[in-house]
Amino acid sequence: MSVQTVSLKSVLDQIDNNLPAATDRLLELLRIPSVSTDPAFAAHCQTAADWLVADLQSIGAEATKRDTPGHPMVVGHVAGEGPHILFYGHYDVQPVDPLNLWDRDPFDPAIEETPAGRVIRGRGSSDDKGQLMTFVEACRAWREVNGSLPCQITFFFEGEEESGSPSLIPFMKENAEELTADIALICDTGLFESRVPAIITMLRGLAGIEVEITGPDRDLHSGMYGGLVRNPLHVMSNIIAGLHDETGRITLDGFYDDVPELSDEIRAQWQALSFDHAKFLGDIGLTEQGGEVDRTPLEKLWSRPTCEVNGMWGGYTGDGSKTVLPSKAHAKFTFRLVGQQDPAKIVAALKAYVEASVPSDYKVSYKGDKGAPAAQMSVSHPAFEQARKALSDEWPDAAAYVGCGGSIPIAGFFKDILNMDAMLIGFGKDDDQIHSPNEKYDMESFHKGIRSWARVLEEMTKK
Amino acid sequence: MSVQTVSLKSVLDQIDNNLPAATDRLLELLRIPSVSTDPAFAAHCQTAADWLVADLQSIGAEATKRDTPGHPMVVGHVAGEGPHILFYGHYDVQPVDPLNLWDRDPFDPAIEETPAGRVIRGRGSSDDKGQLMTFVEACRAWREVNGSLPCQITFFFEGEEESGSPSLIPFMKENAEELTADIALICDTGLFESRVPAIITMLRGLAGIEVEITGPDRDLHSGMYGGLVRNPLHVMSNIIAGLHDETGRITLDGFYDDVPELSDEIRAQWQALSFDHAKFLGDIGLTEQGGEVDRTPLEKLWSRPTCEVNGMWGGYTGDGSKTVLPSKAHAKFTFRLVGQQDPAKIVAALKAYVEASVPSDYKVSYKGDKGAPAAQMSVSHPAFEQARKALSDEWPDAAAYVGCGGSIPIAGFFKDILNMDAMLIGFGKDDDQIHSPNEKYDMESFHKGIRSWARVLEEMTKK
Repeated sequence: MSVQTVSLKSVLDQIDNNLPAATDRLLELLRIPSVSTDPAFAAHCQTAADWLVADLQSIGAEATKRDTPGHPMVVGHVAGEGPHILFYGHYDVQPVDPLNLWDRDPFDPAIEETPAGRVIRGRGSSDDKGQLMTFVEACRAWREVNGSLPCQITFFFEGEEESGSPSLIPFMKENAEELTADIALICDTGLFESRVPAIITMLRGLAGIEVEITGPDRDLHSGMYGGLVRNPLHVMSNIIAGLHDETGRITLDGFYDDVPELSDEIRAQWQALSFDHAKFLGDIGLTEQGGEVDRTPLEKLWSRPTCEVNGMWGGYTGDGSKTVLPSKAHAKFTFRLVGQQDPAKIVAALKAYVEASVPSDYKVSYKGDKGAPAAQMSVSHPAFEQARKALSDEWPDAAAYVGCGGSIPIAGFFKDILNMDAMLIGFGKDDDQIHSPNEKYDMESFHKGIRSWARVLEEMTKK
Repeated sequence: MSVQTVSLKSVLDQIDNNLPAATDRLLELLRIPSVSTDPAFAAHCQTAADWLVADLQSIGAEATKRDTPGHPMVVGHVAGEGPHILFYGHYDVQPVDPLNLWDRDPFDPAIEETPAGRVIRGRGSSDDKGQLMTFVEACRAWREVNGSLPCQITFFFEGEEESGSPSLIPFMKENAEELTADIALICDTGLFESRVPAIITMLRGLAGIEVEITGPDRDLHSGMYGGLVRNPLHVMSNIIAGLHDETGRITLDGFYDDVPELSDEIRAQWQALSFDHAKFLGDIGLTEQGGEVDRTPLEKLWSRPTCEVNGMWGGYTGDGSKTVLPSKAHAKFTFRLVGQQDPAKIVAALKAYVEASVPSDYKVSYKGDKGAPAAQMSVSHPAFEQARKALSDEWPDAAAYVGCGGSIPIAGFFKDILNMDAMLIGFGKDDDQIHSPNEKYDMESFHKGIRSWARVLEEMTKK
């Protein structure tokens, strides 16, 4: 048994023994309501950043809070030999509404015993504070056992991931030298089927925009005007209904121009995963697949683009009834992108379609235009195989290369701006209810996640 | 000049002289936020009813507040010779949202000078407190001049007109004898084109229901689930989009079964009104007609049925973005009915269509089912011609028999339950913005409205 392996066992033991203290630290961080999308929570984002600076300092990093026009970044450095690793996570969280569907205060987190095991319940527990802390805690344990970390590490935490990361690209460009490492590790993803440790090599991109259409210049009495005046809610419904054809394809001009087909190799790998889509749907109370009729479930989730209305509203939405013919209708659209789809081109196609669809006397306005292209990782970097081995050692199932339907634009930015490969490894489960009420993170995810990073560090720094 | 005519002139003078005091009384009533549809305002509905009881007592009526399972009724009686007239109005008002579009507190009414003349600004000023008070003030002036009213009068005010009048039918049935008069006068309508005094002989009915559809049992991350899971907002949009065909006709099975064509006589009368639909649309910022392509504008507004979504919502509707694939979508539907259309049959057809349109693993639930059939007045009762003459004497234009797109179910109830004809006369203008922010009632409407009722009383009680 090599020295290194003895050291790893001690680190893993240290992680096991110190899990209660690590959990307490996570609960502290979860109590800070760092919702990035709502300006009312801006001060809490500052507090979360300060908390992380202090925590990184406690493990020996030179850490600072770095102002941006939006919420601050946190950057920390630990010097060392061997490869230079950058670890990325985000400390901001999604809004909590509808609040009435939560069983507890989303920002008063707690450990709950459930039939499926212990969970950490609260907003951000899985996305992404719990995941972020798995790496920090692995480093803490490593340092406690060995006196120092095994290599040079840069910690890079942002606070705008849930609101489109407006400050990220400028910050990366301005601090390119400081942030460039040999490889980036990103912990914001999940286990495949809540079980198989997974390294993501394919991520969908995102394009989005909010559309407001205005018909009559005020809300009208539906009796006095109904029949002669077009209802903006009907017009918006027609727009949304027209975005997909009967086969589930998106109808925007040129939408599929830059969408590649899967390689035979990837198709075979995904086939081997024997994804249980009936269970996937059953877990959310459904039995029927939606989407493109001629695609497999994993293709629909990982390698095909989508168009979703994330929110829609107009007219009277309170209790009781109000016979109004509303002036306005609103919808928030996002697209998941794949291959070489260009977010700006997709948003432009949506705008052209909306403008061609509204009556000539309607007005259309937009806000919140945003986008990030899809990302494809190169698995030729040796870190991929090192991480695959480390994860396979920790978990019952062997680790797999998979796709991801979500958009984690940071992976593409590391490649495009810093010319750095990124490896996405995370421990979330399908029922974590991220972005939803009652978000949780399994204690197993947290505990084995910390242990996984210790093993990855060991594999990557083996002499 | 007959004694009666001398009396009328004195009454009209009294109305002119006492207009400031009448206005102050109306402002008092407008300050009571008697929103009926929202349970939070229930106490204010009681206050409004109490205020009206006291005001009726001040003009010599035996008036009482009468409890119902919902908001109370106000009933007042004045004994007298000649015809027995029942006057109906409603003291409840529409909700005020969106509050930010009001230029003043909706329940802090005021007289405003505008380029088009003086207006009374505030929620309920036109619909219906201002209109209701025109009749009360006419009676007050008549009594002040003559010592008594010219005939037997029953005042009947309800507080649930804006929320579907759930207590009205039971109350009318339980108090049928007390509420039966020779004819009912209803003041809840407007001048044709804001100018021509109008007696409504045709009213659209109303059917409505709120629909909730549930797909996944929780809100989902649109990246993790998008492409494989159907979005309830898309499903609801498809439902709404499918309710009208390309010619503007409503597609529900059997929807037009009980819709009659206009008689040649009515069609000719409406043609003679030379309705300026371009101005009607221009006043609300529009230029294009919607609705059935093969119908005239007045047909669309008065004699053709409609389907409108009065409110729709689902997903994230706050500031910023949230990439959610929502669990639920909601829509409030109402239909304006004509002829013999049966509200229950129409609601059943909508339900059948919704249930046939959702995926088999979706859930559908309903609330707020309601309805009232359309009403057709018989103009053979002599009061119609008496009122037409009285109104023609007061206003520059001769009075006309017209249709009304709105639903005033009370007119049908008077006929069906009490076998009593009803005459709908009102003084609202097209730009009163009833049901909308910045509702107002012109001082001209209020003043000449009071004078109109004095003339109608005189014509109806002439020896």
